[in-house]
Amino acid sequence: MIRGVVVRNIPRASAADIDVLCKAGSATVHEAQKRLGLLAPYMRPIWEGASIAGSAITVLTAPSDNWMVHVAVEQCREGDVLVVAPTSECLDGYFGELLATSLAARGVRGLIIDAGCRDTKALKEMGFPVWSRAVSAQGTSKETLGSVNVPVVCAQQIVNPGDVIVADDDGVVVVPVATAVKVAVAAQARLDKENVTRKVLASGTLGLDYYKMREKLEAKGLRYVDSLEDI
Amino acid sequence: MIRGVVVRNIPRASAADIDVLCKAGSATVHEAQKRLGLLAPYMRPIWEGASIAGSAITVLTAPSDNWMVHVAVEQCREGDVLVVAPTSECLDGYFGELLATSLAARGVRGLIIDAGCRDTKALKEMGFPVWSRAVSAQGTSKETLGSVNVPVVCAQQIVNPGDVIVADDDGVVVVPVATAVKVAVAAQARLDKENVTRKVLASGTLGLDYYKMREKLEAKGLRYVDSLEDI
Amino acid sequence: MIRGVVVRNIPRASAADIDVLCKAGSATVHEAQKRLGLLAPYMRPIWEGASIAGSAITVLTAPSDNWMVHVAVEQCREGDVLVVAPTSECLDGYFGELLATSLAARGVRGLIIDAGCRDTKALKEMGFPVWSRAVSAQGTSKETLGSVNVPVVCAQQIVNPGDVIVADDDGVVVVPVATAVKVAVAAQARLDKENVTRKVLASGTLGLDYYKMREKLEAKGLRYVDSLEDI
Amino acid sequence: MIRGVVVRNIPRASAADIDVLCKAGSATVHEAQKRLGLLAPYMRPIWEGASIAGSAITVLTAPSDNWMVHVAVEQCREGDVLVVAPTSECLDGYFGELLATSLAARGVRGLIIDAGCRDTKALKEMGFPVWSRAVSAQGTSKETLGSVNVPVVCAQQIVNPGDVIVADDDGVVVVPVATAVKVAVAAQARLDKENVTRKVLASGTLGLDYYKMREKLEAKGLRYVDSLEDI
Amino acid sequence: MIRGVVVRNIPRASAADIDVLCKAGSATVHEAQKRLGLLAPYMRPIWEGASIAGSAITVLTAPSDNWMVHVAVEQCREGDVLVVAPTSECLDGYFGELLATSLAARGVRGLIIDAGCRDTKALKEMGFPVWSRAVSAQGTSKETLGSVNVPVVCAQQIVNPGDVIVADDDGVVVVPVATAVKVAVAAQARLDKENVTRKVLASGTLGLDYYKMREKLEAKGLRYVDSLEDI
Amino acid sequence: MIRGVVVRNIPRASAADIDVLCKAGSATVHEAQKRLGLLAPYMRPIWEGASIAGSAITVLTAPSDNWMVHVAVEQCREGDVLVVAPTSECLDGYFGELLATSLAARGVRGLIIDAGCRDTKALKEMGFPVWSRAVSAQGTSKETLGSVNVPVVCAQQIVNPGDVIVADDDGVVVVPVATAVKVAVAAQARLDKENVTRKVLASGTLGLDYYKMREKLEAKGLRYVDSLEDI
Repeated sequence: MIRGVVVRNIPRASAADIDVLCKAGSATVHEAQKRLGLLAPYMRPIWEGASIAGSAITVLTAPSDNWMVHVAVEQCREGDVLVVAPTSECLDGYFGELLATSLAARGVRGLIIDAGCRDTKALKEMGFPVWSRAVSAQGTSKETLGSVNVPVVCAQQIVNPGDVIVADDDGVVVVPVATAVKVAVAAQARLDKENVTRKVLASGTLGLDYYKMREKLEAKGLRYVDSLEDI
Repeated sequence: MIRGVVVRNIPRASAADIDVLCKAGSATVHEAQKRLGLLAPYMRPIWEGASIAGSAITVLTAPSDNWMVHVAVEQCREGDVLVVAPTSECLDGYFGELLATSLAARGVRGLIIDAGCRDTKALKEMGFPVWSRAVSAQGTSKETLGSVNVPVVCAQQIVNPGDVIVADDDGVVVVPVATAVKVAVAAQARLDKENVTRKVLASGTLGLDYYKMREKLEAKGLRYVDSLEDI
Repeated sequence: MIRGVVVRNIPRASAADIDVLCKAGSATVHEAQKRLGLLAPYMRPIWEGASIAGSAITVLTAPSDNWMVHVAVEQCREGDVLVVAPTSECLDGYFGELLATSLAARGVRGLIIDAGCRDTKALKEMGFPVWSRAVSAQGTSKETLGSVNVPVVCAQQIVNPGDVIVADDDGVVVVPVATAVKVAVAAQARLDKENVTRKVLASGTLGLDYYKMREKLEAKGLRYVDSLEDI
Repeated sequence: MIRGVVVRNIPRASAADIDVLCKAGSATVHEAQKRLGLLAPYMRPIWEGASIAGSAITVLTAPSDNWMVHVAVEQCREGDVLVVAPTSECLDGYFGELLATSLAARGVRGLIIDAGCRDTKALKEMGFPVWSRAVSAQGTSKETLGSVNVPVVCAQQIVNPGDVIVADDDGVVVVPVATAVKVAVAAQARLDKENVTRKVLASGTLGLDYYKMREKLEAKGLRYVDSLEDI
Repeated sequence: MIRGVVVRNIPRASAADIDVLCKAGSATVHEAQKRLGLLAPYMRPIWEGASIAGSAITVLTAPSDNWMVHVAVEQCREGDVLVVAPTSECLDGYFGELLATSLAARGVRGLIIDAGCRDTKALKEMGFPVWSRAVSAQGTSKETLGSVNVPVVCAQQIVNPGDVIVADDDGVVVVPVATAVKVAVAAQARLDKENVTRKVLASGTLGLDYYKMREKLEAKGLRYVDSLEDI
Repeated sequence: MIRGVVVRNIPRASAADIDVLCKAGSATVHEAQKRLGLLAPYMRPIWEGASIAGSAITVLTAPSDNWMVHVAVEQCREGDVLVVAPTSECLDGYFGELLATSLAARGVRGLIIDAGCRDTKALKEMGFPVWSRAVSAQGTSKETLGSVNVPVVCAQQIVNPGDVIVADDDGVVVVPVATAVKVAVAAQARLDKENVTRKVLASGTLGLDYYKMREKLEAKGLRYVDSLEDI
């Protein structure tokens, strides 16, 4: 991490890959990259039902200071997602309706912020999605520099500028831009497989049989008894 | 607690008692059993409005390992509720749409899990209710044995297999199978009384008078003064 | 804080000022009083969409004891807001449908409680709004005296009886009765200004330019580079 | 709370009363004022064994900004205790060895801070006691005004300038300056009584008998049985 | 759980088994019973260095009410350990020097409490060990019945009266009385094995080789590369 | 992050720079790199007084699985520090006396683990320092691959293999290997300056004067008044 820098050019994944990742959703994408990249589960949507994916514009901010969020707006393009991470833990309300208005005007798809958000009612009415650690009306100052488009840690994951962010009701996953293609392919394959599995299980076939778990369970020593007294 | 065992037969309360407890709801049932048996309030529904009661199928799992949830499906019957408790604190996403599809196919009424849950949008669309500690897309492994239908601690309460689980927007209560009849009767009596009280209070009669609290308050020394300066 | 006293007469702000503060909402009011007075962000509405303001009737209670809430009902008038604070941290369910029925019968606008609340479904159906620390069915006792209408600390803020409470989806703000007029004026001015700003930003003008931030950022040393390698 | 003000003159309790309160300790003083005034238990000493009492110099600070702590030093006298409270939750390290050196030079007895503290090893070597919410090396800025010697909320209690702070290994209690005499007398009486009780209990007499609890327990319905099966 | 009952007779493990478990310590005993029975890690000693084991006298209490702790003293014998669990989460100071004096007079070895403790300095001077969730001077009331010697949930584990409690700096483990012999044997075997392993590892032999892990790691697909660029 | 890889060669800072950083300590180093790089303050030493610096060997592990810690031992050299980060939040006891014995045999200076640690008494006696999120006896499994010497997020900071870890009673700071020289110089300069400042402040000179704060405070509008009534 570095303070006092705005990086103008960042890599971005292809729109096609981003679309596939968006449709797959956070849980499937997370599995498709070997259960890595999920932001901490305290990151929750301020309103339910949104489902987005886009390229990360990263913002490193001082605690309780949203100056760099204002700076970051200019670096955003259509299809981006803003990712905001304070240098130390803070729940204050860095972001509200006015900043969302600016971002929406540039085609930004949503905000991921490891801090607080306010004006939640207006944001829902605008259809602007936010995943945050808290809802808080607490205002912030504009005094201390951070950076835009440097690597940050947001909710326990590394986010590099341009990484693909996938966010929905289940949470937020980050996919490194270098592996976006590969993960998109794996996610699609997983979706296809799950569609088959869902039908099998809905018909009453047990996962124990379908996934062929019984033998391995027996090898580990699982015992079946008729009642607690038999143990 | 014991590891590596699946118990096939468990006691169950009568459908009639379970119905009464369901209608009474968690808050009334909890009062009816002398304010005991409420799971910790961090257990929240992943979608609001569901109200269920059923017999507990209990699952003891290793942290971040949902193998025994797959094993437990086979032990579930129509009207049961699955109760999942890890051996140490874990927020990972043990449960999602595919497991819910299996449980729904067997008539299971819902899931109580002292850990995380994912695919929340799909679960809501299916109408499958879950009370969990977290929403998390984090996948889990299938390597370590636990048990099914042994006594567990779920969110600070003992749950024995077959105990009646009552869950709604206010939380989750466990009623031991041995006292289900008695608690159902007490809950019904309480509901009847509350219906009367509600009307009295709605008419403007004060609880202070209706519950005859004034004398006891005076005996404890409560003073009424006209302003803060009079204290 | 003092135990065992009920104060009957308290100051109240004018209905007009309370109306202005209600319309401005918690985030704007909080900014209008220099970012002071916001209750901790763990205070969340039990249902979304309510927006209220009113005069605080304060209740100091023992942990897990809601006796003084019953006592406080009698002191409430049309347009008041009940503010409940335990003497030590407690998540139990002090408040439910029956108490809400009494308060609604007196025209009370809502409840702010630094503890738990239950019967949330019924409260939503009644349209009675509550901001609480937790939802919990856990019942409380009626044994220990507290006070009504003394200064309390609720969720990290001092609330004096008669202070104006402003609460909505963003949280809860307290405005001292002595400064209610001044804050109402400042909040209205802020609303007017935000309406202008919103239009400017929606048109695509950057906040960096509109707020004239570029010069100050440069003075602090902010650098723009083309890529991470240039740092 | 008010921002941007330093109040020079504050009331102080007598040295004699402060001494009595110090000797009684936080637990006894807290009981002597009817179980009111205890700061939240997350306030812990950075080193164990210190036991202090003194007059509160209060500091309201912005989150992650310790400028007003520097301002407050000048207002401190021999025997005072500095009490620091941020306007929103913050764990950063507002205070370290250099500020402690300044305070020690003025005869300040210790620091109570609802935030973080650093240089703990040096502070222990200096014998300067601190009760804080966290130990954190995270530095803070000097950009935003707060106030000195206005009422603050520190760890869920109101502290007015001049209130007596009593702090030891059990925690921190605040005694309003207006009631310091009365509480000191009550605390002393309690100490005397506890000395007698301790001897009685050490001799093997049961509290059940000494406090005459058996009759009240029986009246409430307590039953004694020989084994769990007898219930 | 049941309210309002004191059970006089409970089973106890043999002194010899309790001694073995005490010497093995919490970590070894926990492993010896297949990683089950550890209380949540928020249970910490109020002073370090104590190491105890004994038979559990269990106490179910109301939140912020320590009446039943007074009742429980009479049921304690030489070598017992008191285990206190409130019916809902509470950090208040249920226990201090006077209760410890009574327990010490009866030969009780220590206290396990899922709540707060006070008088920590005096307790340390007396050599009376306590494992608690918090240190808090907050006093409690004596109004509401609980029970003594019924099954309780303490810090996420079931504790039955007479179960063996093993507690040291690493935490607290509960061993069911019925399996105490078996677990003591397994713990001793584990200690013996660890003594050998310690010497082997101290000599520089790698665990990878000693535990024969390399083959299994390779089978799972672990790759060794010379630098990050080779991945 | 990547799963299933062990990287054998990593960069390391010079012993001289590591020594300077060790002597400066975490608070000073953190300031010297512009208040960046501090791990979250929940990372605490299991025993106080240790002060270390060394090159990071990083370990990415599955939750509740310490297999990769065993794998990492072989990659450690004299002067290294092991840094362990689970892929999702976990408090279990990954590390104890036996692993410490292996590490000590290789000259490793300490462990930084964003999870739990056990055998704390033995570790203290060995003089092996650990900074962890929790103390927990809960054992872990050896089933799931992670990686060694890949970039990880540990307690909210990015740690790359070879980065310099500085840890003491105030917490843990990470210094990227590429900037270690520069930060060591800045830290030394800061130490020299603090030595001067300490003497000035100890003599009674106010920080307000020494740091020339009065003018800036006045410009921001700070007012001095004689009493609260004058506001």
